[in-house]
Amino acid sequence: MPAAKPRNAFYAQSGGVTAVINASACGVIETCRKHKNRIAKVYAGRHGIVGALTEDLIDTSKESAAAIRALRHTPSGAFGSARYKLTKFEDNPAQYERLIEVFKAHDIGYFFYNGGGDSADTCLKVAQLADQRGVPIQAIHVPKTVDNDLPITDCCPGFGSVAKYVAVSIREAGFDVASMAKTSTKVFIMEVMGRHAGWIAAAGGLAAEKTGDAPHIILFPEIAFDEEKFCARVQECVEKFGYCAVVVSEGVKNSAGKFLSDAGLRDAFGHAQLGGVAPVIAQLVKSRLNYKYHWAVADYLQRAARHIASKVDVDQAYAVGKAAVELALKGQNSVMPTIVRTADKPYKWKIGTAPLAEVANKEKMLPRDYITEDGFHITAKGRRYLLPLIKGEDYPPYKDGLPQYVTLKNAPVRKKLAEPFVV
Amino acid sequence: MPAAKPRNAFYAQSGGVTAVINASACGVIETCRKHKNRIAKVYAGRHGIVGALTEDLIDTSKESAAAIRALRHTPSGAFGSARYKLTKFEDNPAQYERLIEVFKAHDIGYFFYNGGGDSADTCLKVAQLADQRGVPIQAIHVPKTVDNDLPITDCCPGFGSVAKYVAVSIREAGFDVASMAKTSTKVFIMEVMGRHAGWIAAAGGLAAEKTGDAPHIILFPEIAFDEEKFCARVQECVEKFGYCAVVVSEGVKNSAGKFLSDAGLRDAFGHAQLGGVAPVIAQLVKSRLNYKYHWAVADYLQRAARHIASKVDVDQAYAVGKAAVELALKGQNSVMPTIVRTADKPYKWKIGTAPLAEVANKEKMLPRDYITEDGFHITAKGRRYLLPLIKGEDYPPYKDGLPQYVTLKNAPVRKKLAEPFVV
Repeated sequence: MPAAKPRNAFYAQSGGVTAVINASACGVIETCRKHKNRIAKVYAGRHGIVGALTEDLIDTSKESAAAIRALRHTPSGAFGSARYKLTKFEDNPAQYERLIEVFKAHDIGYFFYNGGGDSADTCLKVAQLADQRGVPIQAIHVPKTVDNDLPITDCCPGFGSVAKYVAVSIREAGFDVASMAKTSTKVFIMEVMGRHAGWIAAAGGLAAEKTGDAPHIILFPEIAFDEEKFCARVQECVEKFGYCAVVVSEGVKNSAGKFLSDAGLRDAFGHAQLGGVAPVIAQLVKSRLNYKYHWAVADYLQRAARHIASKVDVDQAYAVGKAAVELALKGQNSVMPTIVRTADKPYKWKIGTAPLAEVANKEKMLPRDYITEDGFHITAKGRRYLLPLIKGEDYPPYKDGLPQYVTLKNAPVRKKLAEPFVV
Repeated sequence: MPAAKPRNAFYAQSGGVTAVINASACGVIETCRKHKNRIAKVYAGRHGIVGALTEDLIDTSKESAAAIRALRHTPSGAFGSARYKLTKFEDNPAQYERLIEVFKAHDIGYFFYNGGGDSADTCLKVAQLADQRGVPIQAIHVPKTVDNDLPITDCCPGFGSVAKYVAVSIREAGFDVASMAKTSTKVFIMEVMGRHAGWIAAAGGLAAEKTGDAPHIILFPEIAFDEEKFCARVQECVEKFGYCAVVVSEGVKNSAGKFLSDAGLRDAFGHAQLGGVAPVIAQLVKSRLNYKYHWAVADYLQRAARHIASKVDVDQAYAVGKAAVELALKGQNSVMPTIVRTADKPYKWKIGTAPLAEVANKEKMLPRDYITEDGFHITAKGRRYLLPLIKGEDYPPYKDGLPQYVTLKNAPVRKKLAEPFVV
């Protein structure tokens, strides 16, 4: 029996990018290139799934081995990512039909979709529809999210690096404030990502290894903000340690369940001010306690900070990309490679597999027992989980003092379909 | 003739700390320790000059060689710094007399003061008064400031590292936004330090090596903010490059000379909102152009970021500390070691000397010809000056994924004076 003709693969990035999503792309593409007898070319979606819908594909075979290798140390999404959630299949089957049509036109036999919960769902739908239509497409989801909220997998590639950035940054700022507090700033507030869960804020807690270390207080979205308790704790820290360093999640809510960041800042014209819970907390510290404060909002700096990426995270991001291709080559479909923790100390992990039906549209929340009883810090259990994820450094190459990140050629694949598709 | 009895040295840190001021402390202490025949002990001021006034001295001889060595890679001020400006000599001579009294009581023959313009002035005054009183004290100023505004010296230790942090961060955030802009954030605004001069904002410009690279716009304190021109430029960038990355100095002013950060944000109760020009710019982008935006305020993260310090900066910070001691041993007084640039490409520098009378109370402003004609970026000349200062990486040691910064014992020296001094 002659070997089957190799078919093409399609890879796309979805949702907010991370410091290491390109390491997954690197894992996918390098592994595909090792199996040319099975996989012909890897096409990437320009701007993620939007590129698939509009038949705007990128031919990654035009990129040199060095360029693909450099993806491993380049933050952001090299092919463009998208915040574009497909509507429910029932409401708009045409979208899914279009994907199948584009994949068919370009002889796509493998669909690697790199994203969070939404994209796992899309991936599953595509696999199901392809199956119904009798079109052989193996759909494998490659996990990625700084939010660390995918189920089954022990952690999500992207999270470890933002966790490391946050822990390193609050340690450094804590040292700074400690040394100035006698005559200057006494309270420092650092806002971090995590609209729905406190995973990233929790990671800040790793910097506090002994009593008195920064951060002294963590404000989690899981714990309703209590102004009295918070102010009392800040005052206690300033009196005891001379200063107080606070990590606050952007998702912190008041007891009525309303985001503090939406709670009241207005510009001079009365318009609601846009975002930022750190200045709201700072305002409170000033008006209630009259301490000199400073605040920082890390925003994209935290998820783009490839310069201080976690080596464990980079390795895992690459590994899930590689594993996705290997799973496909083994004939698997509708699955996601996962990170399985086999030991805490020393940390050991391996790649597992989860069926997409068990992944899609489920969120893993920060366990309550990772947060201390008083709601202001992480527990030993939380620390045991988090610490291995920030381990190791994986510095990018530098030239003239700046990290050398790759920008790909991103050459388009010639369109084959007559009809455009409007997204 | 028998050798003179070795006398003690006093070292203090002044003003806002940096990622490398402790490298200067390391240079001072390690060099003193090599000359025990001339310098007995190094006492440090707890909380800078406040420690000298209150006779709260730290005996650095209690610290191990390893602990002192670790100062080289530890950000912040290891002995405590202070924002405490001595009043004019004429208005409060008692303050200066007290310094002389404390120095006399502890047999201080060398005064090493590590700070910016104000501390250079204090250093000079102490030298002058000691001379008048017939008390032999050699006062040497050790330059330090992220603001890069000291005269004579080519650059100021502390600046290169914050410059590197800002350039690296805006490059990384630029990559992030570029990859998401199709369906998400189109304008990113990063606020950096520099209340009076645009040195730090200018450093962000280094990340833009070719057309289209982030940052696309820099807002300097030196250039009055022009809303129309700014909005037009943002729109132009978004249309041309798909997105726009902006570095804004906290010191940006409107045409009336008023800080934009003071220009109007109010909380729900009508109180002026505290700091932050980035959200003001973001508000403008939203209301005028209706682009999706994100903003970051790096605040202390930028000046504490020892994890991404410039090697040139660390080397220079150490070198000025070492040189200060060597100048003192050569009998010099009322001077400051400077950085002298001897070549741009490849960058070469050496240590020079400046008389304090020429340093004190003078500010070096960002030259207008470092800023482009249109006021939105740096020129080739600016780049030539700035680029060498961010060169090289000097990573701290890590354990369990976190940088290992030293906290000293800071053992007190027994007080000798009967009278306290209230600051």
